[in-house]
Amino acid sequence: MPLVRIDALPAGTDRLDALGRAVHDALVETIDIPPNDLFQVLTSHDGSTSTLRYADFLDVPRDDDVVFVAITMRAGRPPEVKQAMYRRISELVEKYAGTDPRNVLVTVTENASPDWSFGHGLAQYLQSVGSLERPSMARGSAELLAEDLLDGGCGDRVVAGAGLREDL
Amino acid sequence: MPLVRIDALPAGTDRLDALGRAVHDALVETIDIPPNDLFQVLTSHDGSTSTLRYADFLDVPRDDDVVFVAITMRAGRPPEVKQAMYRRISELVEKYAGTDPRNVLVTVTENASPDWSFGHGLAQYLQSVGSLERPSMARGSAELLAEDLLDGGCGDRVVAGAGLREDL
Amino acid sequence: MPLVRIDALPAGTDRLDALGRAVHDALVETIDIPPNDLFQVLTSHDGSTSTLRYADFLDVPRDDDVVFVAITMRAGRPPEVKQAMYRRISELVEKYAGTDPRNVLVTVTENASPDWSFGHGLAQYLQSVGSLERPSMARGSAELLAEDLLDGGCGDRVVAGAGLREDL
Repeated sequence: MPLVRIDALPAGTDRLDALGRAVHDALVETIDIPPNDLFQVLTSHDGSTSTLRYADFLDVPRDDDVVFVAITMRAGRPPEVKQAMYRRISELVEKYAGTDPRNVLVTVTENASPDWSFGHGLAQYLQSVGSLERPSMARGSAELLAEDLLDGGCGDRVVAGAGLREDL
Repeated sequence: MPLVRIDALPAGTDRLDALGRAVHDALVETIDIPPNDLFQVLTSHDGSTSTLRYADFLDVPRDDDVVFVAITMRAGRPPEVKQAMYRRISELVEKYAGTDPRNVLVTVTENASPDWSFGHGLAQYLQSVGSLERPSMARGSAELLAEDLLDGGCGDRVVAGAGLREDL
Repeated sequence: MPLVRIDALPAGTDRLDALGRAVHDALVETIDIPPNDLFQVLTSHDGSTSTLRYADFLDVPRDDDVVFVAITMRAGRPPEVKQAMYRRISELVEKYAGTDPRNVLVTVTENASPDWSFGHGLAQYLQSVGSLERPSMARGSAELLAEDLLDGGCGDRVVAGAGLREDL
């Protein structure tokens, strides 16, 4: 589910790949998504036709190794989970790509269950088991939405696993 | 109003154009926007300096025809409208660009009326008819915001049409 | 804190730079961020491998000078502040880059304090002064979140300044 955009200044394919793996592994470890829940847009900017601009906000000394990570995911993760996610991203970005943690900006934008379609034109997070085969048993989307608010939109592993066997 | 980002792997101009038309036609048909409400950023990634990464989340077998569609629009569309939008996007992407619906990821991020400026430095969704010519008749932005919450931020056609004749 | 994406059609480095400066100066003037709070992704699209699509929504006559500005920032700025921001962006984009205000689209997406990490793997907006050195004095993230809701997520200058001296 997270859609992740990673922007860096001129980076070879290897560095781009390392950045992508670092962020993804960190998400799998910290926000409870399955390893195959991978949707990334990785961009290396050449510095002329496209570029990044940055300064030393909060006195953090950034340089051209700067990496911007923008994560869109469902609402519900508490602040401490996000904090753990940031920490792990910075650790793995350093480990895999050699990028100093001071150069890693991360921002999160949240949405809700109806805001995702993972293919086949379906809103999978709104599908219940068997809803396609047996419409009479399908729960209303309002009910599922209510559940989503209650559980904070998390537990992707469960919902995804449940919906997938019969719905797809 | 929707700002739509479409990301694909190496795609000729024709495919990029087809993807853009497919998504736009689907939005016009399903979320009640006028045909000229078109704002898209279309990007074909070469796979080296920029690329997409994906896996088989929910057992959907994706391949390099994968397309990521990220839609930013005002809040208020109910889940069933979004479901219809996903379905129509996948149908038209297949029809116009020959892309299998399993390869289409769509995600929505919502904002509100004050979050849009369509040129001239104005927040058009906050302008009422004649507000520029006759400031004393302009309704407060709080009032318009309240309306927006009530009507769910939809009905763009009406609001836009009303604001446009005198405001621009 | 704002992460700003600016997309334009073929633009030399000079125009891209001017657009970036225009938007940033406008934000500093209107939404109370310090000048070094700068995080931008600037992209010039060549019109073939990547491009922008637009029409005349709200009867605004756009052309290939069109600029899309997408701002992600913390929630809390009232509509009149956003209106002032749009106005100033359009003025400075015209002044610095010669781009007519009719060609400037701006959209805002909001998030919250826990949604930002400015390096070092920290969620800086959740850190209180001295929280790293003296954990027992650190206020809980729930408390800081509550404050954030109360103050509308603004006052970046203060929070940032307070957190920075001891935390980084």
